[in-house]
Amino acid sequence: MTDTDTTTTLMALRHLMAEFVAEREWGKYHSPKNLSMSLAIEAAELMEHFQWISGDESRLAAADPEARQQISDEMADVLCYLFSLANTLDIDLATAVFDKVRRNRLKYPIESFRGKFRADQ
Amino acid sequence: MTDTDTTTTLMALRHLMAEFVAEREWGKYHSPKNLSMSLAIEAAELMEHFQWISGDESRLAAADPEARQQISDEMADVLCYLFSLANTLDIDLATAVFDKVRRNRLKYPIESFRGKFRADQ
Amino acid sequence: MTDTDTTTTLMALRHLMAEFVAEREWGKYHSPKNLSMSLAIEAAELMEHFQWISGDESRLAAADPEARQQISDEMADVLCYLFSLANTLDIDLATAVFDKVRRNRLKYPIESFRGKFRADQ
Amino acid sequence: MTDTDTTTTLMALRHLMAEFVAEREWGKYHSPKNLSMSLAIEAAELMEHFQWISGDESRLAAADPEARQQISDEMADVLCYLFSLANTLDIDLATAVFDKVRRNRLKYPIESFRGKFRADQ
Repeated sequence: MTDTDTTTTLMALRHLMAEFVAEREWGKYHSPKNLSMSLAIEAAELMEHFQWISGDESRLAAADPEARQQISDEMADVLCYLFSLANTLDIDLATAVFDKVRRNRLKYPIESFRGKFRADQ
Repeated sequence: MTDTDTTTTLMALRHLMAEFVAEREWGKYHSPKNLSMSLAIEAAELMEHFQWISGDESRLAAADPEARQQISDEMADVLCYLFSLANTLDIDLATAVFDKVRRNRLKYPIESFRGKFRADQ
Repeated sequence: MTDTDTTTTLMALRHLMAEFVAEREWGKYHSPKNLSMSLAIEAAELMEHFQWISGDESRLAAADPEARQQISDEMADVLCYLFSLANTLDIDLATAVFDKVRRNRLKYPIESFRGKFRADQ
Repeated sequence: MTDTDTTTTLMALRHLMAEFVAEREWGKYHSPKNLSMSLAIEAAELMEHFQWISGDESRLAAADPEARQQISDEMADVLCYLFSLANTLDIDLATAVFDKVRRNRLKYPIESFRGKFRADQ
């Protein structure tokens, strides 16, 4: 089901986006400011699918094939703009994620945060 | 500079997130509804860095090391929630991106859209 | 409790914002593009208060005085940017709301939508 | 042009929304969590109008009557959800704005912030 994520590197998708943008000479539109707006707009479109349903209902939202396709599409849009932003700023995303998760492991030690979001709960 | 994106698959990062969430038993909080909100919130925090500057100025925003680190961090946050959402919904992100770009190639043919966003410009 | 909303016109608050911006000569920053970003950023900060709790829990979120103050503050921020945007574009907000609600009354007739969001539910 | 804002109180519009929601028995959907998502979604739709243009261009975006209508519509949507949220939480918006502006006057004294966003610029 999720075979492609297993074999696709982040750079492969970054290259795909870079090529798509370069072919259309859209780099002039792709300032970080504009791309950050685009990313937020797509994130809001993704939210729309879960706007009026409960958290539990949202876990089943992708069971319907049509809804699943639309949700996948919105997630792809978010990702495409994020890759374009990484291309524009020359930021290595995997390094950013590894760093962030490493710091979050220290910030949220397992023994204090198991099953809760605040240490004092 | 961007070596790690060249060697890291999407699934490697998805697994990293899945492990981080499972260790803390945070799956109960990770409904698609909640994750889509989190993603939109992080996207807004990314936008904050470019809020009051022009598009041209935003191209230089990541030149400052401290700003660069903060921007990388926000991008990592967006990505982490996107990976968690993909995990929760079992959606293959690479397939979603390949599909989307393939359709966008048809929707925005190079000859009609070179240097512009609307075919009639 | 809600006395002030009963006696305050939208224009009174628009004037307050116009004065605040003019005194600081911030009009140059207040392009519609920038203001729309600011509004979205504040909307996301408002969402943060309800990010990890259920819909039912969110109905009680403002019972705590400190949380109530923070939520009020975020709502004020959204409103301030909306008033600044109305000032910049010279758009009458009350007219916009009256128009919108009038059209929504036609779009969502009571008999078809009572207790549901889709006519076919 | 902006006559209606001069004569319309915030409570008048809050009542309009309360009536619209009550007639359709939509209160059950109007948790603060859901309304904050809706507000953020509409804010993103407002941003879409300024997504690919510069700040200066965005100052002229509402000159076109059709675009002006669409922008007014999105602003009305933001406002309607904000009024519904104020109704649900029983928060007085005018008080919130007066408080916020009063504190911002102290935070951003005119002499230090005239023409700039940071005191040290």
